[in-house]
Amino acid sequence: MQPENNFTPSQRSTIKRVPKRGDYERNTIYRILDEGLVCHVGFVANGQPFVIPTAYGRVDDKLYIHGSPASRMLKTLQSGIEVCVTVTLLDGLVLARSAFHHSMNYRSVVVFGTATTVETAEEKLEALNAFVEHVIPQRSQEVRPPNRNELTGTLVLSLPLDEASAKVRTGGPIDDEADYELPVWAGEIPLNLSAAEPVNDSRLPSSIEVPTYATQYMR
Amino acid sequence: MQPENNFTPSQRSTIKRVPKRGDYERNTIYRILDEGLVCHVGFVANGQPFVIPTAYGRVDDKLYIHGSPASRMLKTLQSGIEVCVTVTLLDGLVLARSAFHHSMNYRSVVVFGTATTVETAEEKLEALNAFVEHVIPQRSQEVRPPNRNELTGTLVLSLPLDEASAKVRTGGPIDDEADYELPVWAGEIPLNLSAAEPVNDSRLPSSIEVPTYATQYMR
Repeated sequence: MQPENNFTPSQRSTIKRVPKRGDYERNTIYRILDEGLVCHVGFVANGQPFVIPTAYGRVDDKLYIHGSPASRMLKTLQSGIEVCVTVTLLDGLVLARSAFHHSMNYRSVVVFGTATTVETAEEKLEALNAFVEHVIPQRSQEVRPPNRNELTGTLVLSLPLDEASAKVRTGGPIDDEADYELPVWAGEIPLNLSAAEPVNDSRLPSSIEVPTYATQYMR
Repeated sequence: MQPENNFTPSQRSTIKRVPKRGDYERNTIYRILDEGLVCHVGFVANGQPFVIPTAYGRVDDKLYIHGSPASRMLKTLQSGIEVCVTVTLLDGLVLARSAFHHSMNYRSVVVFGTATTVETAEEKLEALNAFVEHVIPQRSQEVRPPNRNELTGTLVLSLPLDEASAKVRTGGPIDDEADYELPVWAGEIPLNLSAAEPVNDSRLPSSIEVPTYATQYMR
């Protein structure tokens, strides 16, 4: 079944503060998820909230996270409790003429749901490749694929992308009318995640060249 | 009273996965908090975890977050429930010779505690300036300071920096011994948040020059 092009906002996924910045389009949400590198996983253990940063991958309408079977986070999530996964891309600093109206441009996605353990070796392998592909497309085909021990030794959880929302701010500052006369610079400082020159592993033979996906890495 | 130079790891703030990456030094933790621009605030409402990205500021041993008094997040936190605030800096992609050993270099901080509402106008003003200073030092002295309405119309919460831990990964990939023979590039792609050319606000008079803290913005 094809998923809907738009998510239906639920009570918990509805953007309440500045609703015009909310976006429930699947395309928008997936573009943000695909550009991000780290998600923040929120869960509750003994009444206590935890927010843990981790890598992730997306395959169709599933978000995968993974780690050691000893991970407190993964073991807790495995029990089927509610999880909230947030991905935030910071696009710029917004400098207004007043302290109060300073802001940031960003794109964020919040996903709600419950995670399930990936059981089949086939889906696990697909997910593990997705983690590498998420960061560097094509890379998973060049490296040694996961072996049986690695597959067994990795816990992979799958979160369905059923209930999610994006929130996006763009553009310059919005000042109080009277403040536009102030002799203060105002505008946006765009920010982006950029890559510096790759650093060879200390044991890399000199015959191996740095691939262009590393020298020209862009997000 | 001077706070201790090191945080005492509590049960919830102890780094359990790869404990050697844990760091409880106040200096390390504050450097990470001061470099970050966005934190992820985790809290529980009706048993449901929420993870919301937001700006923050630090003054001594307090972390401030703020927003509209109508904010669901702030109203929930005001009731004195447990909160978890996480800041993550992504420093690089670590490319190993096997899919399994791919990793990321990062520095993250997790803070636990309960927030309290900042009541006095004096501390509120200090916090509001801290939000601007956190992003651009000196900027708060150039812009119009918050007026009475803005102070009243902003809810500021203070989280004591009493219980926190950092987790840090640095360096290249760690491959299985047999994989070092593979003819695959391995190393690190360093990442950093970089600023592009500032964009003037559309209503900025041409007589106002872009300040160097904007043209040379660095994090």
